[in-house]
Amino acid sequence: MKSMPVMVDICLVPLGVGVSLGEYVAACQTVFQQAGLNYQLHAYGTNVEGEWDAVMAAVKRCHEVVHEMGAPRITTSMRLGTRTDRHQSMQDKLDSVTQRLVVDD
Amino acid sequence: MKSMPVMVDICLVPLGVGVSLGEYVAACQTVFQQAGLNYQLHAYGTNVEGEWDAVMAAVKRCHEVVHEMGAPRITTSMRLGTRTDRHQSMQDKLDSVTQRLVVDD
Amino acid sequence: MKSMPVMVDICLVPLGVGVSLGEYVAACQTVFQQAGLNYQLHAYGTNVEGEWDAVMAAVKRCHEVVHEMGAPRITTSMRLGTRTDRHQSMQDKLDSVTQRLVVDD
Amino acid sequence: MKSMPVMVDICLVPLGVGVSLGEYVAACQTVFQQAGLNYQLHAYGTNVEGEWDAVMAAVKRCHEVVHEMGAPRITTSMRLGTRTDRHQSMQDKLDSVTQRLVVDD
Repeated sequence: MKSMPVMVDICLVPLGVGVSLGEYVAACQTVFQQAGLNYQLHAYGTNVEGEWDAVMAAVKRCHEVVHEMGAPRITTSMRLGTRTDRHQSMQDKLDSVTQRLVVDD
Repeated sequence: MKSMPVMVDICLVPLGVGVSLGEYVAACQTVFQQAGLNYQLHAYGTNVEGEWDAVMAAVKRCHEVVHEMGAPRITTSMRLGTRTDRHQSMQDKLDSVTQRLVVDD
Repeated sequence: MKSMPVMVDICLVPLGVGVSLGEYVAACQTVFQQAGLNYQLHAYGTNVEGEWDAVMAAVKRCHEVVHEMGAPRITTSMRLGTRTDRHQSMQDKLDSVTQRLVVDD
Repeated sequence: MKSMPVMVDICLVPLGVGVSLGEYVAACQTVFQQAGLNYQLHAYGTNVEGEWDAVMAAVKRCHEVVHEMGAPRITTSMRLGTRTDRHQSMQDKLDSVTQRLVVDD
């Protein structure tokens, strides 16, 4: 199988464990770190980039870990971006927007 | 690895191919069918249920197929639901809502 | 303000109320019905179509109602589609895919 | 109508305008700024927080502006979070995760 880099934005929501979810999100950050992936937390999710299979294995591991922590149900929302025209990192995506904002000044 | 059933809702959006996306969505329906998964198209996405690895392999195949059809870029939005307390099929989820609607009459 | 029809797909998730969410989803169906909107439940969300302001007022009402039912926290995932080239109903979107599936046979 | 603060994460995707979307995302940043909202761009979307009506008016304005820029079709994916138990800012949400990561060291 040929290489397919992917950038995802993931927001994992454990259900049945109350309203404080920080410890579950933190556990997922650890999963991404241990997988050696490039990731960046934001206020409503986490950006993760890498090879498709590595990123998706980490997403699966997040579900497994959060269930093991005691959450009986999980609902995750995720965006997945792939492109074949060129490589674009998370920083490239940010730059493509912020460069235009500078121009607008 | 133990079994982990998942229900996803996926909306794959090819970029750089104009505004008519029906043929790409149809190609993904074929991917789900050929994978032997239970799936149901709706007006803004597709429900798919099955084992995690089988469903995610089909999602990856959708990205590969749509790129092969000529789309240089894809952005997908997806919900992923897992639960360890009990099995709940797509029909079970629908029933859990519609039974209450009947009661409300 | 000129007309802007929108189609949304909404999945509202109450937090802090356990893992059985059917009654909350059912309450939202009632909100959409009372708003006179065209809507269709599926296994992982609800399609709703109408004028932007009417649809968004209903989405806000769903959050209000679910909070009033006792949920201290809500996280909703939503897709929103607008187009200026032509009108496309929920049924039109389904047809644009299923017609191609028939052709494939 | 009583106050309802909301935090959203929005990823607006114009269709029919090619694969370079930076200028459209930049235009939305300007909308959020002109609305006086607190917002933060990340690599796969933008966090925005404020009163429900103000945030949703800005989201609608983004669709209007991007259509005016020439995009015939838009598909947006959005998360919306509300809570009645306490106020939680974007920074609070980040802290609730990163404090736990420090503890894990």
